[in-house]
Amino acid sequence: MNNNANPIGVFDSGVGGLTVVKEIIRQIPNERIVYFGDTARVPYGSKSKNTITKYTRQIIRFLQTYDVKAIVVACNTASACALEEVEKELDVPIIGVVKPGAKAAVERTKNGKIGIIATESTINSEMYERFIRQRNKEITVLGKACPLFVPLVEEGLWEDSVTYEMARRYLKELLREDIDTLILGCTHYPLLKKTIGEVVGDKVSLVNPAYETAKELKELLESQELLHLPEESMDSEKYKFFVSDVADKFRNFAETIFSNFNEELAAGPATEQVNIEEY
Amino acid sequence: MNNNANPIGVFDSGVGGLTVVKEIIRQIPNERIVYFGDTARVPYGSKSKNTITKYTRQIIRFLQTYDVKAIVVACNTASACALEEVEKELDVPIIGVVKPGAKAAVERTKNGKIGIIATESTINSEMYERFIRQRNKEITVLGKACPLFVPLVEEGLWEDSVTYEMARRYLKELLREDIDTLILGCTHYPLLKKTIGEVVGDKVSLVNPAYETAKELKELLESQELLHLPEESMDSEKYKFFVSDVADKFRNFAETIFSNFNEELAAGPATEQVNIEEY
Repeated sequence: MNNNANPIGVFDSGVGGLTVVKEIIRQIPNERIVYFGDTARVPYGSKSKNTITKYTRQIIRFLQTYDVKAIVVACNTASACALEEVEKELDVPIIGVVKPGAKAAVERTKNGKIGIIATESTINSEMYERFIRQRNKEITVLGKACPLFVPLVEEGLWEDSVTYEMARRYLKELLREDIDTLILGCTHYPLLKKTIGEVVGDKVSLVNPAYETAKELKELLESQELLHLPEESMDSEKYKFFVSDVADKFRNFAETIFSNFNEELAAGPATEQVNIEEY
Repeated sequence: MNNNANPIGVFDSGVGGLTVVKEIIRQIPNERIVYFGDTARVPYGSKSKNTITKYTRQIIRFLQTYDVKAIVVACNTASACALEEVEKELDVPIIGVVKPGAKAAVERTKNGKIGIIATESTINSEMYERFIRQRNKEITVLGKACPLFVPLVEEGLWEDSVTYEMARRYLKELLREDIDTLILGCTHYPLLKKTIGEVVGDKVSLVNPAYETAKELKELLESQELLHLPEESMDSEKYKFFVSDVADKFRNFAETIFSNFNEELAAGPATEQVNIEEY
């Protein structure tokens, strides 16, 4: 039952989860990865818990056809809305981005006031609050849904005046409450880091759950002796990418994410379309 | 085979198609309507032709379980990307919003320069251009995708400075080319009519395909002797609404659309959730 050479399954509602893949490659470069982006049904952020859970189950069934040794829910919305329900049904370890993000924020805050920006469904789930309060009941947690950030990122307006204006509006209340730590609770948001950073200023520390999740994944694989060690053989392609809609747009976005990082992936990774509704 | 009392099936990727329903009720108030909004998989505007066609087929199969006597594709993207392919497979008449919108624009323009704003997939399909050119080869047609308009409408920023700024950017080129007619080629856009009107000014006439489509539907039912005449019995509920995700948000939007229009519907119509992937 030595399955250390099996891949890690990573999924997201679309392309945003590639920021998590990047962190995983950076921190545990020997691992094989099978990625699924639900580009046909993106975005998840305004969908209901039930629908998100149904989609999550379909994707996990798909990933399991690749004998994944662990699963990473690289989507904040699916982590917040579906993970708790589906993890009971699985015999491989599964981790989301919410818990590691919450943990890092608790470690980071000095004044005990943490802000969270995320999609509507993630904010409504109150999962960040729950994980933060589990660690420290004294902390004040302020959530704010930012529904326009995902479309603004997808339009490439990462440092645009319109994005700046929306960031100013979305963050006004959190800043008034004097937060010193802000969780970027959606995999798209780290791409707005510069704009958000300008709005919140130097005194607010930004937490990127992608980084924290890769760190937790590494620790998990180590503790379960599932790390892929360099001396083992790695027969098939190291990284596989799948999407539910056509692959072109995904590949363009992947190019942007992986440029100046990984030569093979920066050329736009080979990506295959899957009929996810069949799973 | 007298099925005049059967309902008309209307569908959209989400809530936008309710603007078409409103026009149908205004123009042929005796008709029964079964509406489906694909709120779980919205938006369609950035999806591929194949995916949109697959979703359209599923929805038509669902509507046919209500013995619809005609189908209206109230979504510009599905009309532009899927209608041509699926209409061959049907034995009931089906109409989309693109052809009536194109016809109205051709009748309206004086200088022969028509602009179209729509989703990315609608613009890429070039269907508006095709229908316009079929009627008049001399007309200059200029299309512009406006991907942020749908999220801005859904956020309720109908007359906001950010929406105004985006409209100014999106429309700059069309105005430079001196269009005198602008097709609002997405069912969400009529809700931005005031903002768009301010940006384009009085000299540009706005075409709302929703109105034109209801007019064409009425003519179609008349010519095929399918109109529902008042003396016939109407036993079941007149309007039925279905969605693929939870109904709450849909009902709120419906309330906005139908307020000051139809008392029964303004209270938020009874709406049922359907597992559309099963069709």
